[in-house]
Amino acid sequence: MSSSRLVGVGVGPGDPELVTVKGVNALRGADVVVVPVMDTGERGRAEATVLHYVPVEKVVRVVFALNERTDQGRREAAWDAAGARVAELLGEHRTVAFATIGDPNVYSTFTYLAQTIGELAPGTVIETVPGITAMQDLAARSGAVLTEGTEPLTLVPVTAGATVLKEALSGPGTVVAYKFGRQAAEVAEALRETGRIGDAVWGSALGLVGESIRSADELDDTPLPYLSTLIAPAPRDGGRGGKL
Amino acid sequence: MSSSRLVGVGVGPGDPELVTVKGVNALRGADVVVVPVMDTGERGRAEATVLHYVPVEKVVRVVFALNERTDQGRREAAWDAAGARVAELLGEHRTVAFATIGDPNVYSTFTYLAQTIGELAPGTVIETVPGITAMQDLAARSGAVLTEGTEPLTLVPVTAGATVLKEALSGPGTVVAYKFGRQAAEVAEALRETGRIGDAVWGSALGLVGESIRSADELDDTPLPYLSTLIAPAPRDGGRGGKL
Repeated sequence: MSSSRLVGVGVGPGDPELVTVKGVNALRGADVVVVPVMDTGERGRAEATVLHYVPVEKVVRVVFALNERTDQGRREAAWDAAGARVAELLGEHRTVAFATIGDPNVYSTFTYLAQTIGELAPGTVIETVPGITAMQDLAARSGAVLTEGTEPLTLVPVTAGATVLKEALSGPGTVVAYKFGRQAAEVAEALRETGRIGDAVWGSALGLVGESIRSADELDDTPLPYLSTLIAPAPRDGGRGGKL
Repeated sequence: MSSSRLVGVGVGPGDPELVTVKGVNALRGADVVVVPVMDTGERGRAEATVLHYVPVEKVVRVVFALNERTDQGRREAAWDAAGARVAELLGEHRTVAFATIGDPNVYSTFTYLAQTIGELAPGTVIETVPGITAMQDLAARSGAVLTEGTEPLTLVPVTAGATVLKEALSGPGTVVAYKFGRQAAEVAEALRETGRIGDAVWGSALGLVGESIRSADELDDTPLPYLSTLIAPAPRDGGRGGKL
């Protein structure tokens, strides 16, 4: 039985200042900080943010997020190796932090890692520290209010299919679409069909070199980065909404 | 025309460590920091968090959030006075920060303030800095994963009515209910009807003295604090969900 701690730390969408004070303390207080990297070896967003707060000697790069085009077998083998590596680190250290972009409880690799560690290293105490999500950063940078008054807000990963997205867009609230890089054309079509393309904004590489924030009107057949985010604000009278 | 800046800073749900580094810098960089307070005069959550980072001399208390039972006429008069006070501060200072609990673009008073200032002090540059929301903090503290894989996530303020909540609970994704203090019994009924009460958790006063995190099974007719939050996780096989 492990008596170590694994802490999933949300490091925000890319801007190193969008980590919480609690997140910075968790990264600095850990014995080692695991950062997920692509098999291409390039520096990931989580890694870049972590290196603003933690010396490189304490950072352990583990290959997790394989290229989307990698075949299933290789993905699973890489996943097993990554889980085993984290379990090994938990055997050597009291506190292991795992840095994840966004929030560790919102569409995060950390959810799967926590389950794997529950099997490989039972007894490990698992904690999370919340982080700013891409939709929150896009709202702040674009001026699109996410939700107000009695409006609902729905998050839809486009990987769930265009039907789920269209249903959400037919409702009264704000809709946020995640992970729609390859399906930009379908997203644009769903927005047009529901009459909501005019107010929608999309963004990618928020807070980073290459940041792009544009009107959804400009979406066409060109694939966008996988980590693109779209906000279709609730239909509202009078711009930012009425008084109390 | 004003050439000042009004910055809405999300200071998180109550734990002073759940402010981002960017938020701390925005609070410290502002000439004055407005904190909304109740007409009862008691120290609010935003105020308590701000005072961890900013000297009291720079903090301006403005009565905003009147008691729920205050009549409409008095609420509107107080709102007008608050907007006028912030406009006055923008006339005297280059940068005014407004601290709001949670995130300034998610069910925040800041949205209404920004609109009022747009009318009273046109030309004011309006910005926001994202903050951790109560649902993210509750997920981290309770271990309830908000969303994974292709699941949608829907936020519903219970003030929108029980029908909206039931519809959301009938869908496949996680449902977060906000502002349900007075309607605890209706929320419990909706959870029971949709078979989702078993996994749901609610919390209030997160990160503060009096923090309460409990199973939704314990909800009864007793009114809960207005700022209670509930997470009904998506129905999932096998606990925290499957692998990649």
